[in-house]
Amino acid sequence: VRMGDAKTEADDVNLCIKDDTRNPSGSLKDRATEIGIQHAIEQGKRTVVAASTGNAAASLAALAAFYKMRAVILVPVSSPKAKLTQILQHGAVLCPVEGNYDQAFELSLQIVETYGWYSRSSGFNPTLSEGKKTVALEIAEQLGWATPDKIYVPVGDGCIIGGVYKGWFDLVQLGWVDTLPQIIAVQADGSAAIVNALESGNDIAMVKAKTVADGISVNYPRDGLKALRAVRKSGGHGVIVTDDEILEAQKRMSETAGIFAEPAGAAAFAGFLKDRSLGKIKSGERIVLLATGSGLKDIPAAQKRIRIPAAIDPTIEAFRQFTQNIDHPVS
Amino acid sequence: VRMGDAKTEADDVNLCIKDDTRNPSGSLKDRATEIGIQHAIEQGKRTVVAASTGNAAASLAALAAFYKMRAVILVPVSSPKAKLTQILQHGAVLCPVEGNYDQAFELSLQIVETYGWYSRSSGFNPTLSEGKKTVALEIAEQLGWATPDKIYVPVGDGCIIGGVYKGWFDLVQLGWVDTLPQIIAVQADGSAAIVNALESGNDIAMVKAKTVADGISVNYPRDGLKALRAVRKSGGHGVIVTDDEILEAQKRMSETAGIFAEPAGAAAFAGFLKDRSLGKIKSGERIVLLATGSGLKDIPAAQKRIRIPAAIDPTIEAFRQFTQNIDHPVS
Repeated sequence: VRMGDAKTEADDVNLCIKDDTRNPSGSLKDRATEIGIQHAIEQGKRTVVAASTGNAAASLAALAAFYKMRAVILVPVSSPKAKLTQILQHGAVLCPVEGNYDQAFELSLQIVETYGWYSRSSGFNPTLSEGKKTVALEIAEQLGWATPDKIYVPVGDGCIIGGVYKGWFDLVQLGWVDTLPQIIAVQADGSAAIVNALESGNDIAMVKAKTVADGISVNYPRDGLKALRAVRKSGGHGVIVTDDEILEAQKRMSETAGIFAEPAGAAAFAGFLKDRSLGKIKSGERIVLLATGSGLKDIPAAQKRIRIPAAIDPTIEAFRQFTQNIDHPVS
Repeated sequence: VRMGDAKTEADDVNLCIKDDTRNPSGSLKDRATEIGIQHAIEQGKRTVVAASTGNAAASLAALAAFYKMRAVILVPVSSPKAKLTQILQHGAVLCPVEGNYDQAFELSLQIVETYGWYSRSSGFNPTLSEGKKTVALEIAEQLGWATPDKIYVPVGDGCIIGGVYKGWFDLVQLGWVDTLPQIIAVQADGSAAIVNALESGNDIAMVKAKTVADGISVNYPRDGLKALRAVRKSGGHGVIVTDDEILEAQKRMSETAGIFAEPAGAAAFAGFLKDRSLGKIKSGERIVLLATGSGLKDIPAAQKRIRIPAAIDPTIEAFRQFTQNIDHPVS
């Protein structure tokens, strides 16, 4: 887990990226899975259940393999095959369900009750927050126990942002840091249940989620209350970004910091760029962005913004011609 | 870079996996790129050139972005689009060439000569071995400066295995370790130019390479002499494995160690399994396998061995029925 430096045009802002794309299964979810599996072992459980189509499921499959535990993963039948490869690769029991994510989630809770297995669902099992919060502990340690001004977090169900708050809250209680950072919730405009509630002051209302950032595409956030608390108690705010802004930020982060995050993983950077364009970033602020998952998990999304140039003859003359026709001058 | 423990059935063998799948761009190649870029900066160069379709190109693109250098990458026109995504994502200049890899490679050397740019080709630039060898230094450090009995290395061009030898050779010269490990070269049967030469005692002869493990698919190994030296001087040997054996090993490593390597990255494990089945592994031996690249880079290869089960109704009764029909009993 690396702290990359991303220089942007605004050189007066101290901008750091917390790179969780290189965790064992390629996402921040490994933090919660690790704690969950240790807790399951402590309780004498051998089987861990999750309902998920994405990073949480892949994380459970990978870490269960490492610890010789059994993973049982329920997915909606419509899940894309590529997403299921990583799960099956690690030998998890994969059970597609005729229905949507909510039905798969409800069935997973019935299974936990019926079979006595361990639940790896952050929206149900509060222990998992204790894993998620380690990202806050690490950031604080890497910053020399200084609190940054703002932390930008991509938000779907709300469990990661809840963990960030919990980690910093604990550090303040322990006296290891002085204050909370402003915790900023970034959501896609097609999946903005939490930011909607933040801005209206009402309860969280279900949306019909649609965004390229599937890792934060959520109809009804199961950790919504924790997310609202994280933002409100820390003096943060919500930011809504478009799919275009997410993909643009994803590309720019790869080009400037060398980090290839999936769209959900780049949403925090998109939120920062939006806030900066609105004048919400002050000179000299120290800002941390969470990059939550690897771009290698979603190659088709990245391909939306990429154009492969026409081929040239294998001669130095053809290459010289080529260099005159490309966006980046090569002289 | 993590040292995973992979328990196999042969519990009397001390088997470690050197996990290079989680380097910045997802492969061991980042070690050479890092040194290459530092060397280029030292020489006042701003542009680095490579001919490659795979991990070396992605690595150059990612690290060049981080260091604000310019990467120019030549690829044969037939390269699969998915392979080019990571390169373009990081903003590298990608130049497809009408021709095969050898023609792209030759053009890259002409470009280096014409424009005075820096070459990131291990087969041309010996500095890059100084990066590759760091994997040997790290393994030695992680083993407490003890030399393992055998190191299994997937071999294509031969530059990685040459670097492993160079690293251990340096450590012996420095007196930090006592002896070399046996260095074992693992190649796919469809791309076995180096093992063929090891077994026949003849010079390296070109092959027409064809294997699922594209990272080690090479007609004429450009670092072949270094590879031969590494194996011969260390008392090692060559192992040839089939594509089926590679994919089987890839799946098994994911299921038992939680590491998802690409086929080339799992070839070392396939070679170990082959040697063990032939009685070439002694009880109590300490063995290290190099896992050289992430499986997330080649999802279609993993899908060859995966079957997605039929969907069930979202009821506990349907789930109970499901558990009776799966390979892994879930009771």
